[in-house]
Amino acid sequence: MDDLQIAKSVSMRAPADVAADMGLDPDLLEPYGRDVAKVRLDAIDTLADRPRAKYVIVSAITPTPLGEGKTTTTVGLGQAMARTGRKATIAVRQPSMGPTFGIKGGAAGGGRSQVVPMEKLNLHLTGDFHAVTAAHNMLAAVLDNHLYQGNAAGLDQHSITWNRVLDINDRALRNVVLGLGGRMDGIPRESSFDISSASEVMAILALSTSLSDLRDRLGRIVVGYTGEGKPVTAEEIRGAGAMAAILRDALAPNLLQTLEGTPALVHAGPFGNIAHGNSSVVADLIGIRSGDYLITEAGFGADMGAERFFNIKCRASGLVPDAAVVVATVRALKAHSDKYKIVAGKPLPEDLLAENPDDVLAGGANLRKQIENMRAHGVSPVVAINAFPTDHESEHRAIAAIAEEMGARWAVCTHFADGGAGATDLADAVAEAAAEPSEFRLLYPDEMPIRDKIETVARQIYGADGVDYTPVAARQLDGFETNGFGTLPVCIAKTHLSLSSNPALKGAPTGWRLPVREVRASVGAGFVYPICGDMRTMPGLGATPAAHRIDLDEHGEVAGLF
Amino acid sequence: MDDLQIAKSVSMRAPADVAADMGLDPDLLEPYGRDVAKVRLDAIDTLADRPRAKYVIVSAITPTPLGEGKTTTTVGLGQAMARTGRKATIAVRQPSMGPTFGIKGGAAGGGRSQVVPMEKLNLHLTGDFHAVTAAHNMLAAVLDNHLYQGNAAGLDQHSITWNRVLDINDRALRNVVLGLGGRMDGIPRESSFDISSASEVMAILALSTSLSDLRDRLGRIVVGYTGEGKPVTAEEIRGAGAMAAILRDALAPNLLQTLEGTPALVHAGPFGNIAHGNSSVVADLIGIRSGDYLITEAGFGADMGAERFFNIKCRASGLVPDAAVVVATVRALKAHSDKYKIVAGKPLPEDLLAENPDDVLAGGANLRKQIENMRAHGVSPVVAINAFPTDHESEHRAIAAIAEEMGARWAVCTHFADGGAGATDLADAVAEAAAEPSEFRLLYPDEMPIRDKIETVARQIYGADGVDYTPVAARQLDGFETNGFGTLPVCIAKTHLSLSSNPALKGAPTGWRLPVREVRASVGAGFVYPICGDMRTMPGLGATPAAHRIDLDEHGEVAGLF
Repeated sequence: MDDLQIAKSVSMRAPADVAADMGLDPDLLEPYGRDVAKVRLDAIDTLADRPRAKYVIVSAITPTPLGEGKTTTTVGLGQAMARTGRKATIAVRQPSMGPTFGIKGGAAGGGRSQVVPMEKLNLHLTGDFHAVTAAHNMLAAVLDNHLYQGNAAGLDQHSITWNRVLDINDRALRNVVLGLGGRMDGIPRESSFDISSASEVMAILALSTSLSDLRDRLGRIVVGYTGEGKPVTAEEIRGAGAMAAILRDALAPNLLQTLEGTPALVHAGPFGNIAHGNSSVVADLIGIRSGDYLITEAGFGADMGAERFFNIKCRASGLVPDAAVVVATVRALKAHSDKYKIVAGKPLPEDLLAENPDDVLAGGANLRKQIENMRAHGVSPVVAINAFPTDHESEHRAIAAIAEEMGARWAVCTHFADGGAGATDLADAVAEAAAEPSEFRLLYPDEMPIRDKIETVARQIYGADGVDYTPVAARQLDGFETNGFGTLPVCIAKTHLSLSSNPALKGAPTGWRLPVREVRASVGAGFVYPICGDMRTMPGLGATPAAHRIDLDEHGEVAGLF
Repeated sequence: MDDLQIAKSVSMRAPADVAADMGLDPDLLEPYGRDVAKVRLDAIDTLADRPRAKYVIVSAITPTPLGEGKTTTTVGLGQAMARTGRKATIAVRQPSMGPTFGIKGGAAGGGRSQVVPMEKLNLHLTGDFHAVTAAHNMLAAVLDNHLYQGNAAGLDQHSITWNRVLDINDRALRNVVLGLGGRMDGIPRESSFDISSASEVMAILALSTSLSDLRDRLGRIVVGYTGEGKPVTAEEIRGAGAMAAILRDALAPNLLQTLEGTPALVHAGPFGNIAHGNSSVVADLIGIRSGDYLITEAGFGADMGAERFFNIKCRASGLVPDAAVVVATVRALKAHSDKYKIVAGKPLPEDLLAENPDDVLAGGANLRKQIENMRAHGVSPVVAINAFPTDHESEHRAIAAIAEEMGARWAVCTHFADGGAGATDLADAVAEAAAEPSEFRLLYPDEMPIRDKIETVARQIYGADGVDYTPVAARQLDGFETNGFGTLPVCIAKTHLSLSSNPALKGAPTGWRLPVREVRASVGAGFVYPICGDMRTMPGLGATPAAHRIDLDEHGEVAGLF
């Protein structure tokens, strides 16, 4: 059976029953169709006196372009917790609709470890992405109207940083000139569209702790600068209130379920490249009081997703993680031996599939470094060996040996094929790790200068020898410090395919320096993001995109999502 | 109390109770929050054997720029039907979010005749507008990708007719150049954005009778022409299936309620300027089997909205109207005397408010013509005298005299102030009119050539002496006939502020000819639209737009919509 057939073969539980597992009364739910509900934000206060769940972050070694199964492991671990008598909730990002119609097709997890209903999950769900798109573009319209109506704020047209977004892969919108036509048609200027997941509004939705926090963050968005370099905010041009009204319902997290009926909070989908790539704080504030374990996923490898989870998301939420799962696969560790080339959309190289535990060990440096990085934050690591049918037992033993050498717990998991039953060893290992007292610590304090924060992450987490700034980046950093953005954490935008900033470097590269090309600030979301390399924020469609095959079938059901 | 206070002062019924009034089982509903539900399309078949309701269209005389209260009358009439022991459902368009943040603020009806919940209604509701936006822009991305990937269909870049849309008032997007940047960033070309309600996809959503009809119409969309003038469709560039998947849930109509708990189907919001400006066919296919009366509203004056209701919407649905309400106001008839100038956003002229039945009579030609136009379609007219506090009884009697002279029923209504209790006379008059056998007839047959269709509407409905075409329009018409679009009905895009194409001409102008500047075709929606005058399809924001004042209040509720 393919993923869609599996997803359709299970009968779903009523959202109220799923919520009951979390101790949520039905009056805390807003139904959206029969199989999805939003959880009202009141739940945060209502549940405040409940015991705190153990907080588990699922991340991974530096992945191949195919991904190593973080979402699947998050789902599988949640299901396994239930099978081992523990109450668990998972919290994951909502997929972006753009890539659904691009190469990716739809997905959240796979095999017997999926979040359902998958058609809703991969299309509109409850409309949160649409609300982000509408709020972002509302601010853009208010901004261009501000220019048109006389530009009272004195915005320098060439230093406007706010663009527009659509949740679609549309390369033709990467660079546009707008405001053309006649005198009544606005002020002509260059601009661009990003995909909605790259919107600062999405990052804000994910990091806000309450409606009033959301409102404040929206007001702090910097839309551009005056001729004198003074930041102009969304508040100043009077766009933040309308955005908050548009986003009001979107701040409530969505309750779905796994194939085995485990509660799944699906909320927000900030881009992993230029934002923190983690699901929402409000979902976690609810999930943390809803059982024994809250298991959440961080995008990309642990050097990216988990580092941002710790230093951006936990900084915003105040929540303290108890264990960190590092997903490792035989294929990715073999790739880190630097003997193989894996390309997205192509079959794996034949020789990579042959039994070869030595190549696994040869790639071990990456896993070691990622385990170390979890320890650097004071969080107990657990290595989840995500098994594939083509793996060999000797290769799993090789990964286990690396984990043991590092003093980390480990478990082999087959949740893709077997659902929760395939991850019960992992559930036990995670429970043991989380039972240890958390020594969680942020990597750097708020008051550290931005350059030192970047240097800290680059050296300690990535293993760089130092950081180099272009003159532009240096000037931008100076401006940010002057404008008071220096207390924000950093969200380093680099490739996720290497611990370094060069995607070709495998394992745990040393003897390199992090090149910062430019630096931007998401002041509303609350981070500064140095850009190291090319960062696409609007994907394109391929020659045969999923959009060509997705359709309604003869029963009026959505077909072609897989 | 203002409209918002009134709206907040009533307690709403559960959607399942409202649906029960329509004879709809709860399993035909999909809840969206506690106060809104979608009605599953299965309802059309499930209800097929029920008795057919009387079908009532609410339209108006040629309005002032302030509007004469069609929606309010639709709501009030629905409420009055219930108060007089009749089961009624109303069906109206969903408001566009763009104008909500522009000058308009939010609304659907007013006073004690409103549709609720008003915050949802004026913002996302169930996401249908967002789905239209996403589907429209998906086709645009597929189109630009088609050009980028080699343009197999041979599209002539300069004859592309498909643009992009956003549900926002954003003048800066009226004229854009996209595809700029480098080789990887698409093909540079001029294009534009419309507001989402002006999207052909919105018109298609409103006119489709089923999911498969929707799918077929999407496939028939013409996105442009080859160098040889051959139309290229959405089907040909493989964009229609993805659009249908995106629109699947949006085709189910939304069930809301009036302040008095009358069922209100709110679905689709096609632009009145360049599309048919009527709510959806599927809502009416459900409402027509859900009680004694289905009351629906047509945008603009009866020469525009009702004519399109008859000749486009009823042609698509096969439904037969039984009565036509023509809303008339003292102020609009006085304005038709051509002695006063009414400007949107300004107070009414003082002298217009003085008692003056003669001026009402002097403007009577417009009402007479609109009544005649209803008769031209074989439908019994009823004049609803929508009373304002500044009216005088003698002025109401003047309107009644015109109605009686024309043999039309009439009633004075105070539903704005009094809710359904203020429209019981109207309800009785409508019931009597609808009890007469319907002699409904389309104004022209499908097979009439397009020019003759335009001429028929211009002469018979607008009172023109004939039609003039620019050379461009003539060439376009010839092309449409060649390409087989000649069997489509026409949707004439002219000002709604006059029966003529000149907004300055009041009453029932004679001795004028309709100037057709250009002609476009919405082949998927199924109409040809001749453009007579300037037609803006993307509004802008004003100097003090509602977006500046809309915000969340201290309780996290949306404030400033009124």
